Amino acid sequence: MPAAETKKRAASPRKTIRPSYSYLIEKKRDGNEFDKDEIRFIVDSIIDNEMPQFQQAALAMAIFFQGMSAQETAVLAEEMMLSGEVVDLSRITMPKVEKYSTGGVGDKTSLVLVPLAAACGVVMPSMNGIDEEMIISTLRKLSSIPGFDVDISLERFTDQLRDVGCAIIRQRAEIAPVDNALYQLRRETGTVPSLPLITGSVLSRKLAQGADGLVVDVKWGNGSFIRDVEQAKQLARSITRVGRSMKKRCVALVTDMNQPLGDSVGTALEVKEAIQLLKGEGPEDLKELVLKLGMEIVRLAGVAGSTLSAKQAVQRHLQNGEALAKFREMVVAQGGDADVIDHPEKLPTAKYVRKLPAPKRGYVHTINAGAIARGVQILSQDSDGNWDHACGVSEIKKVGTQVKQGEPLMMIHYNDESRMEAALELLRNAYRLAPKRPTPPDLVVERVA
Amino acid sequence: MPAAETKKRAASPRKTIRPSYSYLIEKKRDGNEFDKDEIRFIVDSIIDNEMPQFQQAALAMAIFFQGMSAQETAVLAEEMMLSGEVVDLSRITMPKVEKYSTGGVGDKTSLVLVPLAAACGVVMPSMNGIDEEMIISTLRKLSSIPGFDVDISLERFTDQLRDVGCAIIRQRAEIAPVDNALYQLRRETGTVPSLPLITGSVLSRKLAQGADGLVVDVKWGNGSFIRDVEQAKQLARSITRVGRSMKKRCVALVTDMNQPLGDSVGTALEVKEAIQLLKGEGPEDLKELVLKLGMEIVRLAGVAGSTLSAKQAVQRHLQNGEALAKFREMVVAQGGDADVIDHPEKLPTAKYVRKLPAPKRGYVHTINAGAIARGVQILSQDSDGNWDHACGVSEIKKVGTQVKQGEPLMMIHYNDESRMEAALELLRNAYRLAPKRPTPPDLVVERVA
Repeated sequence: MPAAETKKRAASPRKTIRPSYSYLIEKKRDGNEFDKDEIRFIVDSIIDNEMPQFQQAALAMAIFFQGMSAQETAVLAEEMMLSGEVVDLSRITMPKVEKYSTGGVGDKTSLVLVPLAAACGVVMPSMNGIDEEMIISTLRKLSSIPGFDVDISLERFTDQLRDVGCAIIRQRAEIAPVDNALYQLRRETGTVPSLPLITGSVLSRKLAQGADGLVVDVKWGNGSFIRDVEQAKQLARSITRVGRSMKKRCVALVTDMNQPLGDSVGTALEVKEAIQLLKGEGPEDLKELVLKLGMEIVRLAGVAGSTLSAKQAVQRHLQNGEALAKFREMVVAQGGDADVIDHPEKLPTAKYVRKLPAPKRGYVHTINAGAIARGVQILSQDSDGNWDHACGVSEIKKVGTQVKQGEPLMMIHYNDESRMEAALELLRNAYRLAPKRPTPPDLVVERVA
Repeated sequence: MPAAETKKRAASPRKTIRPSYSYLIEKKRDGNEFDKDEIRFIVDSIIDNEMPQFQQAALAMAIFFQGMSAQETAVLAEEMMLSGEVVDLSRITMPKVEKYSTGGVGDKTSLVLVPLAAACGVVMPSMNGIDEEMIISTLRKLSSIPGFDVDISLERFTDQLRDVGCAIIRQRAEIAPVDNALYQLRRETGTVPSLPLITGSVLSRKLAQGADGLVVDVKWGNGSFIRDVEQAKQLARSITRVGRSMKKRCVALVTDMNQPLGDSVGTALEVKEAIQLLKGEGPEDLKELVLKLGMEIVRLAGVAGSTLSAKQAVQRHLQNGEALAKFREMVVAQGGDADVIDHPEKLPTAKYVRKLPAPKRGYVHTINAGAIARGVQILSQDSDGNWDHACGVSEIKKVGTQVKQGEPLMMIHYNDESRMEAALELLRNAYRLAPKRPTPPDLVVERVA
């Protein structure tokens, strides 16, 4: 019973055409469109370690400037997907929907959505990546739960998806290896923000994980690598358009990331907040986003026929404890200590908690989410790269909140006094207070379907 | 007596700033200007083999799209120049002017200009590169003269410049080695046609060769890598502007390369034509270009004060045999058989000569110079890369010439029948005949000073 189908691409024999790499670079540089065979040739040449990295880099930069059509991007995604293993979830009869987020500060929605979807009868086969700049990965958050294993085998993963309905594991190296290689190169060559390359990367990975549909959360703002709302909208349109041309159902929400999502940033602190939400409590903005993304997931899966019934299904399973029960089952299935659910104080807890006092009275006007992320990273990570799960910030006063002088803007959880000063500087400077109440930002800016 | 000054750049200690390579790539990608230190850091990092090639490639492509300012380009040229040896010609009291051409099919002007300038009292320290696509290098042409040595030492080179007034040698690896490395990378990454990178490359090499001024021939057309006249004008302006900001006198001519220059293409055939010109004969277009470039050279050198006196000086030394005498001296000094000057039949001669017949009567409307170059290359070069100096084409009917059906469009010189068919196809298709006389193209399109 193979958990991962070996739907591998025929390699070298496919290379019937053999254009030179510089011809291909020049073609894209001059704004022309690649045909299918050319994209296949490029992907094959990267797989076979034949196309030198410096020519890959030049091509990526040419793509950054000249873009790619939906058709080109779809072929790229398909070929990158087929460069590795494709997870076969055909044994699972429930509808399967994946979620992809561009990443945000304090974003713990996946921790809630995965069990919530399972409670609603939708499987989300979740393979997650590692930390990015500003972004604490879902994997790292889960590893604050004692014993939780994100490295179970693909076979156990699919068994658990079938039996429990949810599982969260580490992105496998066997999935879209060309995308992994290309992404490493892009990180060092200024070509990460290319819309078609992001689109190809996301779709190649997510669709290799066996999902029938994809819900995308494109975040824009000072806590996202996308600073511009228009760029975020373009990416949302690009992914949904290309996804559709690959015959996959896709919906994208463009959401605000100009302040942390929810009230806390940190690993154990965010797990605590996710558990609160699964108990029907928790901060409003997080609840709103979970609800909106959850509705998209159940609608895409065909579990709910209308917006209203989707909303009711998601709300019901959040309120009636079924989503929490699924979370508990998942924690147990992956070897984690489920006691933390009823006793969150059993999660790592910091020795010291201090407030960040407001320097004056006023309204929270803006928050630099990226600066808060960096502050939390300084608090949590020592010079050897070890992560202290107890650290972070909580009770974050959000944009629009009125504060008195000296009132806490947030609570800072820490164990190591020596890194406090640098973190404090970042956290303090992340806040702008103003005498007038600002217009709070829209959490969901646009829905693209 | 050191011929090459060791005016080397201090390497690592200069790297006081240490920006990351991806930061620099992103900076240029986003259209920002590098400061002096950043360009120095980049050049230092390439010299020290520290900046990976894939990041150099991404940076080159970002420069292709975003350009560089005159200031940035001047610093790049200066730093690349100082990356290697700088030829010290201070012992030579005569004015020193270099010529750079972007390269063209049938362009043998350097073979004439170098001795002509010497006859006028101007030294042209000529270091030449190897063949490019469509372009037979001056070095290859000279090597059709039995015994001619293009690899004499830098010391002999400067001695000969002082004693004879002219010398033509191979580009030295010690000159601007960073430019050499970068150029190899650019050839394979579609970044050759970047105006600032061409400008930086030309100026770093030419000014390292010790010249006081530079005359540039920017060719545009189907026999040049620059197909567009506006791009050619931009390159002419870029080189002269940056050259001036480096305190070097520069003049550029933008010239036509939509048909071969002169009546022949090939190595020995072109040397023959150059010798004809030095005897005051030869084709009109070649003569016109030699005259115009020669005038610029003597004016830039300060040998002639006015356009008229420059023209007279150049014409006089071409007619009175002094330029030819200098050529003879140079051939002798570099070990070549000077007998070929009086007896051109002693140059390599092909066994077979056949005509390319006009398929119909009419006027030569267009000639694809690039196709003729490729045809000559097929005739001349065997599969092992050996070059047969006897091969080529001569008596080329130029644009605007009236021909009868069956009349020769050119004479084809060849030794190997087996490569004839492929060459013939290219040569035949290079011609377009039309019933009406076309307007002949302007040889010199623009002068940029």
